[in-house]
Amino acid sequence: MQAQLIALDWGTTSLRAYRLGENGRVLEQRSLSAGIMQLPSTPRRVAGQLCSDGFELAFDEACGDWLDAQPTLPVIACGMVGSAQGWREAVYQQTPASVAALSSALVTVRSTRGVDVHIVPGVLQRSELPNVMRGEETQVLGILSALSAEQAARPMLIGLPGSHSKWVRAVDARIVHFDTFMTGEVYAALSSHTILGRTMQRSDAFDAVAFDRGVAVAQSTEGAAGPLSTIFSCRTLGLTGALAGTAQPDYLSGLLIGHEIVALVQLLRQHEQHLPSVILIGSGPLLERYQRALHANGFPQVNLAEQATERGLWQVAVQAGLISSPSVAAARPLHVEN
Amino acid sequence: MQAQLIALDWGTTSLRAYRLGENGRVLEQRSLSAGIMQLPSTPRRVAGQLCSDGFELAFDEACGDWLDAQPTLPVIACGMVGSAQGWREAVYQQTPASVAALSSALVTVRSTRGVDVHIVPGVLQRSELPNVMRGEETQVLGILSALSAEQAARPMLIGLPGSHSKWVRAVDARIVHFDTFMTGEVYAALSSHTILGRTMQRSDAFDAVAFDRGVAVAQSTEGAAGPLSTIFSCRTLGLTGALAGTAQPDYLSGLLIGHEIVALVQLLRQHEQHLPSVILIGSGPLLERYQRALHANGFPQVNLAEQATERGLWQVAVQAGLISSPSVAAARPLHVEN
Repeated sequence: MQAQLIALDWGTTSLRAYRLGENGRVLEQRSLSAGIMQLPSTPRRVAGQLCSDGFELAFDEACGDWLDAQPTLPVIACGMVGSAQGWREAVYQQTPASVAALSSALVTVRSTRGVDVHIVPGVLQRSELPNVMRGEETQVLGILSALSAEQAARPMLIGLPGSHSKWVRAVDARIVHFDTFMTGEVYAALSSHTILGRTMQRSDAFDAVAFDRGVAVAQSTEGAAGPLSTIFSCRTLGLTGALAGTAQPDYLSGLLIGHEIVALVQLLRQHEQHLPSVILIGSGPLLERYQRALHANGFPQVNLAEQATERGLWQVAVQAGLISSPSVAAARPLHVEN
Repeated sequence: MQAQLIALDWGTTSLRAYRLGENGRVLEQRSLSAGIMQLPSTPRRVAGQLCSDGFELAFDEACGDWLDAQPTLPVIACGMVGSAQGWREAVYQQTPASVAALSSALVTVRSTRGVDVHIVPGVLQRSELPNVMRGEETQVLGILSALSAEQAARPMLIGLPGSHSKWVRAVDARIVHFDTFMTGEVYAALSSHTILGRTMQRSDAFDAVAFDRGVAVAQSTEGAAGPLSTIFSCRTLGLTGALAGTAQPDYLSGLLIGHEIVALVQLLRQHEQHLPSVILIGSGPLLERYQRALHANGFPQVNLAEQATERGLWQVAVQAGLISSPSVAAARPLHVEN
């Protein structure tokens, strides 16, 4: 089947490439470790020329054969590839941000093989404490574009758990506000570089009881002490025999994700009386943790969404006029799991 | 002048030794790096015998010559030397803890030279989230014993800033409650092992403006997002040109200490309407930071206290009957700086 677009999700540590067909259907996908901080460095021939540029090499690895087969395929990319340390800087667009706004601000870099790569800019929120994202905006727009007009009109909270979790408030299919929590990175630093790691015993199995206990502490009266204090209980509960070493990693995870969600609720309550419905983007075990913590904190509805990046890149490409086919405007309905 | 007591403040990374005279006056003091996690290991002769035990070697380095001169001097020690990883475990005493309670629970280890070392137990609080301390309890008792009966009767908050800050509530010269904040260790982990460290430029000078800005953020509406979120502003304020790299370390310090004090206020408000007067124990630049953050959060009175450890060890030794002199009961008035 003929492709219509090559879409690249190009972050700090990984590069995912999608060959998309009619209506954005995924025909083929690849995952490379060639993020912008670990680009290939061995010079070789690209499009007939000896090349040593890491971005060119990674780009060719990711989709050179696809372009050999269809040399006129448009290419779009999002993520850290557009940062100051990326292939070409795509200056942040300010909130509120929509598909239309981002589509009209694509930045182009011409590759050695003569193909233009269109880079989606990140989003900057000039609040008292500014916030930035690169890549997540495309995922969010991918989700929003798949909602019905009625769904999109309601205030909605979109969560992107990760090393730096993002919580995005959207109204009328536009990103109006977002917050960042460094929960994942803080967890890694605490586990590996503080006294808490010394008594932890790693285990592959998820200890749901320990995790839920951490979440409950964050919500409790004792949780008012905040994460700087409650995390010490990993150690003291261990000392008093009330928490096994094997339970400590997931207890700490529950504490931190719990404090994140408790704080998120406080921020939401500054604006709204009712908690909004939530869509969580991503996949895998981290989403289960966030689902548990959200339910424990009273969020009435939490849906999961997948394939957000490739949907978002497709939508931006359509809006930017990179794709000529008449079939493209029809968005598929959002696949939602409860 | 004849000494009456050898007092050892023996922690994880350091060992401080005091030769105390009448009324606990400090005649001589030494600071060694021989904490229980970095004991000397080169075997040598101690009291005529070849010795390779790290505790014996460190003890001899710290005060062997003092004991050679006065072999019957009593010796008392506090800190991690009494932990399960220490010279001899002195099992935690539970709150409420007083000088009398700790004095009657000393644990003794006989050294190679035949001298007994009396170890002060740490304190355990069996609250929902347990808390422990070793060494700080002795400092607190040192401060409390120097207060007038009238002063001691009032509820009081004693702060011990450090890698793990302790906040101790005392009534009637007894430790009734305490909380731990891992602020110092979290600061170190964030600065050295997360993305925040990448844009920080270290500077020896204290940037009070940056520090106060961090404290103010923790107190603000945005601060409700909690430290897991606000710390990301070190990076984003840097990206938007609103915070220089040289200002980022003290801004982060202000954020974390600010969140600690905001949480402390919340905990105190669960019990009392008015903020108590505070005594901060310690010395050096960290105390200045805590003073600033306490004042910014409305604490009406913050006093500084020094020499808390040697005072506390003296008081416990007196109460335990280790010192026979009749002059010992008179506590010197507390030296307080505003």
